[in-house]
Amino acid sequence: MNIANTAFVILASVLVWFMTPGLAFFYGGLVSKRNVVNTMLSVFYITGIAILLWALCGYELSFGPDHLGIIGSVRGLFMNGVDLNSLRPDKLPEGAFALFQMMFAIITPALFIGAVVGRIRFSFLTWFIVLWSVLIYYPLVHLVWSPNGLMAGWGVLDFAGGTVIHINAGITALVLSGFLGARHAKQTEPNNRPWVLLGTAILWIGWYGFNAGSALAANTTAVNAALTTSVAAASAMVAWMVLDVRQHGKPTLIGVCTGALCGLVGVTPACGYVTIFGSFIIGIAATACSYWFIEKLKPRLHIDDALDAFGCHGVSGIVGSILTGAFATKTANSSIAENGLFYGGGWHLFGVQLGGTAVTIILVAVMATVIILILRRFIPMRVTAHDEKIGLDLSEHGEVAESHDDMSDVLRYPDEFQGQMRGFDPRNQ
Amino acid sequence: MNIANTAFVILASVLVWFMTPGLAFFYGGLVSKRNVVNTMLSVFYITGIAILLWALCGYELSFGPDHLGIIGSVRGLFMNGVDLNSLRPDKLPEGAFALFQMMFAIITPALFIGAVVGRIRFSFLTWFIVLWSVLIYYPLVHLVWSPNGLMAGWGVLDFAGGTVIHINAGITALVLSGFLGARHAKQTEPNNRPWVLLGTAILWIGWYGFNAGSALAANTTAVNAALTTSVAAASAMVAWMVLDVRQHGKPTLIGVCTGALCGLVGVTPACGYVTIFGSFIIGIAATACSYWFIEKLKPRLHIDDALDAFGCHGVSGIVGSILTGAFATKTANSSIAENGLFYGGGWHLFGVQLGGTAVTIILVAVMATVIILILRRFIPMRVTAHDEKIGLDLSEHGEVAESHDDMSDVLRYPDEFQGQMRGFDPRNQ
Amino acid sequence: MNIANTAFVILASVLVWFMTPGLAFFYGGLVSKRNVVNTMLSVFYITGIAILLWALCGYELSFGPDHLGIIGSVRGLFMNGVDLNSLRPDKLPEGAFALFQMMFAIITPALFIGAVVGRIRFSFLTWFIVLWSVLIYYPLVHLVWSPNGLMAGWGVLDFAGGTVIHINAGITALVLSGFLGARHAKQTEPNNRPWVLLGTAILWIGWYGFNAGSALAANTTAVNAALTTSVAAASAMVAWMVLDVRQHGKPTLIGVCTGALCGLVGVTPACGYVTIFGSFIIGIAATACSYWFIEKLKPRLHIDDALDAFGCHGVSGIVGSILTGAFATKTANSSIAENGLFYGGGWHLFGVQLGGTAVTIILVAVMATVIILILRRFIPMRVTAHDEKIGLDLSEHGEVAESHDDMSDVLRYPDEFQGQMRGFDPRNQ
Repeated sequence: MNIANTAFVILASVLVWFMTPGLAFFYGGLVSKRNVVNTMLSVFYITGIAILLWALCGYELSFGPDHLGIIGSVRGLFMNGVDLNSLRPDKLPEGAFALFQMMFAIITPALFIGAVVGRIRFSFLTWFIVLWSVLIYYPLVHLVWSPNGLMAGWGVLDFAGGTVIHINAGITALVLSGFLGARHAKQTEPNNRPWVLLGTAILWIGWYGFNAGSALAANTTAVNAALTTSVAAASAMVAWMVLDVRQHGKPTLIGVCTGALCGLVGVTPACGYVTIFGSFIIGIAATACSYWFIEKLKPRLHIDDALDAFGCHGVSGIVGSILTGAFATKTANSSIAENGLFYGGGWHLFGVQLGGTAVTIILVAVMATVIILILRRFIPMRVTAHDEKIGLDLSEHGEVAESHDDMSDVLRYPDEFQGQMRGFDPRNQ
Repeated sequence: MNIANTAFVILASVLVWFMTPGLAFFYGGLVSKRNVVNTMLSVFYITGIAILLWALCGYELSFGPDHLGIIGSVRGLFMNGVDLNSLRPDKLPEGAFALFQMMFAIITPALFIGAVVGRIRFSFLTWFIVLWSVLIYYPLVHLVWSPNGLMAGWGVLDFAGGTVIHINAGITALVLSGFLGARHAKQTEPNNRPWVLLGTAILWIGWYGFNAGSALAANTTAVNAALTTSVAAASAMVAWMVLDVRQHGKPTLIGVCTGALCGLVGVTPACGYVTIFGSFIIGIAATACSYWFIEKLKPRLHIDDALDAFGCHGVSGIVGSILTGAFATKTANSSIAENGLFYGGGWHLFGVQLGGTAVTIILVAVMATVIILILRRFIPMRVTAHDEKIGLDLSEHGEVAESHDDMSDVLRYPDEFQGQMRGFDPRNQ
Repeated sequence: MNIANTAFVILASVLVWFMTPGLAFFYGGLVSKRNVVNTMLSVFYITGIAILLWALCGYELSFGPDHLGIIGSVRGLFMNGVDLNSLRPDKLPEGAFALFQMMFAIITPALFIGAVVGRIRFSFLTWFIVLWSVLIYYPLVHLVWSPNGLMAGWGVLDFAGGTVIHINAGITALVLSGFLGARHAKQTEPNNRPWVLLGTAILWIGWYGFNAGSALAANTTAVNAALTTSVAAASAMVAWMVLDVRQHGKPTLIGVCTGALCGLVGVTPACGYVTIFGSFIIGIAATACSYWFIEKLKPRLHIDDALDAFGCHGVSGIVGSILTGAFATKTANSSIAENGLFYGGGWHLFGVQLGGTAVTIILVAVMATVIILILRRFIPMRVTAHDEKIGLDLSEHGEVAESHDDMSDVLRYPDEFQGQMRGFDPRNQ
């Protein structure tokens, strides 16, 4: 057993776990005040659902004994048939690999919550996540990341989850928001921008676990992934800021955060295969395409992807997945079979990446549609107009994000606490 | 020296440190608006107090040369008599072990703050923490975790701190809130639910350092602990959500967070000894008992454990400590001496766990009572009714959590800043 | 390649990265409500700017082939001339070292944002950061940390960045606030104290990566650094609390957070060279000097260092850098050439530390002045009085931190949502 790599993978798993509550803050800060609790809860409770499903059967469906290159098989519930202590060829105990992959099974469904906030019924969402995990996520993981998977056999490069995570979540987001329809009320303002920043920061540090951790070893590929991840996030952030200044005259915090995220998404499939310069370009390309989609194309589509789960994860994921076929180079990673288009490898890898991306899009779009069509025969997909108006925080959970009840006395009797506070002026409260 | 394990333990220590400010947000979000600063400060300043005490004498009282299996001894203040670079039998430098254990000495007293918020005098609390550390915490650590400790000799299994941390903190919480009496005003609402989520998320990632780190090596036991920790948190979270829906008709964010915490507490003593299925059951049992205590039993007890420090840490800690005697199995950890009750080991280990749990409860209850009875002869335990009414933020610290002073001009002259903002409507501000 | 140390350095880098958004919350919580977005954005977008500059040329200017001990040289943009996989003498791949150092190049300019909030023009700030990085930061890194650097040759001890990071940022903060002039409106209250706590907590955990990580190995020096970092933060925190109680009668959350930060700053240059007792004293000394400066001296200086970037990082950095010459001892680190003043080493090391500190102060003060004098010929340094009055959130970014727009309906029609909520009383909202 390689202790150092095991330590690295355990700690990388912890970082990836942190991304899901990070996303709760990212999305929770962007929605309107009356949907904060619902949004945060819808993201966060996935940690519970997805971990249970993964332990019950998900790991084995993803990485268990192969069926036709499409799906694994379950030898026992709760990983009963898996020897967690057995060593994989890379000298990691299988349990460490199962732990790391478990975190990806949490964050992926959490990503598409951004599309459905403010109107989806909580019970519909719960069952959708269960079916989506079993019918879409585990098969896709098997196809791309299992050594026996069909798409792995085609030679599709996806270092840390461009197809499996981001395109998958982005397309699911698009399909869900299409079926759900638009929110009744137009939201004008994010309710809490600092939470958006907090979410972005947590997502970013988690992404180091996500991308560098995907090397499954603290080797030079992991180091390269950490560097390219940083540079793509940086170039995408600055690119978004420049576009914001050109379009609207001012740099914005939301723009800087969204841009950084697009860069992180874009570089995910590429980070272990490209140079620092490659990641610089991928970051800019991811932002450029997501910005164009969100600002120009989306207003014409009449699909209410509320927080741009597709605009960010879908579009930047597609850009990154395809550009991996252009920027992958043996200079950055000697283990790959061929160079990308811009490094003299010709069109082959580029074509493979295009194909893998297209297959993922079609597969997810079809399966998500099937799940929705079946599920909504049993559970209404959308809350009532009344519930939507008062907000899902009250209608679905009976909770509000912030309450000021116990300050009422203080405000009513300001004299009593005057002089308690250094430089404190109650008239300003 | 084992570098990989040293790296693992240093980084696990950092994760455990993070739990204390995480707890400040968990508790700070639950209290009423007028006690936010006091609650957060009371949790966070323990990092200062506990680190100084630990360096001064705590480490040596816990792990220094043994006296009768009850307490260690101090060879020099500020660890002057300890060779931090000397290697322990597990090839960790002693300093790394002292660092990791230091973090536990911080988080444990922070846990019982949840019981006393809104009415305890800050100076009383400070002295209580000092006496509690020296008279309860260090002896208990020595009894259970020192190789020479009495309870260690009985064969009590406590992987990461069920007795030492959670039962200890829970019982202390109960005793403190009993002596303090109830708050005058009934609080109806948590002031900030997103902070509760943030606190839960930070506690959860810290718990990986806490539980997996307690293996003191990046080995298969650490991996098992990380997996069982995840699964217990998940099953407890989902169990609480199901109970909430059955009892009150709606899933809640507070419920999901509380449930996850109960699962994490419950699995703490067990995580290195049980299978994934075992942790699944422990999570459900922890939630079931804590839920029953908080919803059914507590309202009849007339003890105002304000934020359920006992209901969560005490109850789930007791459940986990006892169930370790039922679910521990050599399948999960070949180093233990015997299997638990449900794995053919008979009643012996179960009895030992029951005994260890009972002794911890009695020891802590008696000692905490003694400390309070002595200390309140010198310092009043509770703030005045007036101070409680205006809130401890103002009365004890002269601070408020949030201030809006400088927005007054903006609100007074809305015309001036119109047109500064894209899609911004000042009437809604 | 040493895998364990590489894993340690990658993960330490992640921790250091987290400090910059942590600082955004520390500063963002301290400012007035109308400058929250601007403050957070000004800190956070430095991640983008500084990473791009570092990749473009910064790493090579800092650590590339030496010119006269003053600056490195760039063999290719985007680290094109650097073999990231080549092993350094300590068996770390060069890419891991470049990654770790990159994080320091982000946090350092972020520190001085605290001095300029509420009035600096965003475009001026952007260009200042670019010029400051190239003309001050990279040369100073080369002088102190490159094996060929002049100050390294003098024997200046700076374990993790007392001169390079904190004195540098503190002096830059002082010069910037001097040229900028005071804010028009006096701010009386921090807008959000919990964010200050969150920022402090994130900074503190990041500091473990910063200080322990600076050993570039998970060795006993790293363990010592983690312990001394903890103890200095603790003693400085408690010292500030005691001073607050003596001066103003009450302990405060802001005081506890500021104190902890001063201790962390003070111990940064010393952490790998001093004992636990040494760090205890350094923490107290750092707080004492920063407290005296902020409370007594600053009010007479007429320099509006708004959030005490100099008072905290500058003053405590100077204290720590000089006291390293007093408390450094071969007992704590056998690799140093001589003991400090208090450990029988005589005045030599103390004098070297004094000299190194003085040279850093002068160098940074002169260069920062030159950059400002040149830059303000092209871009106005300060926003207009009108923009300052309405706040930089609206004037520079068109954003507000928190918005309540969509609650208006709920508040207008409270009947509609009555009964939706358990124990929820809308009159208190």
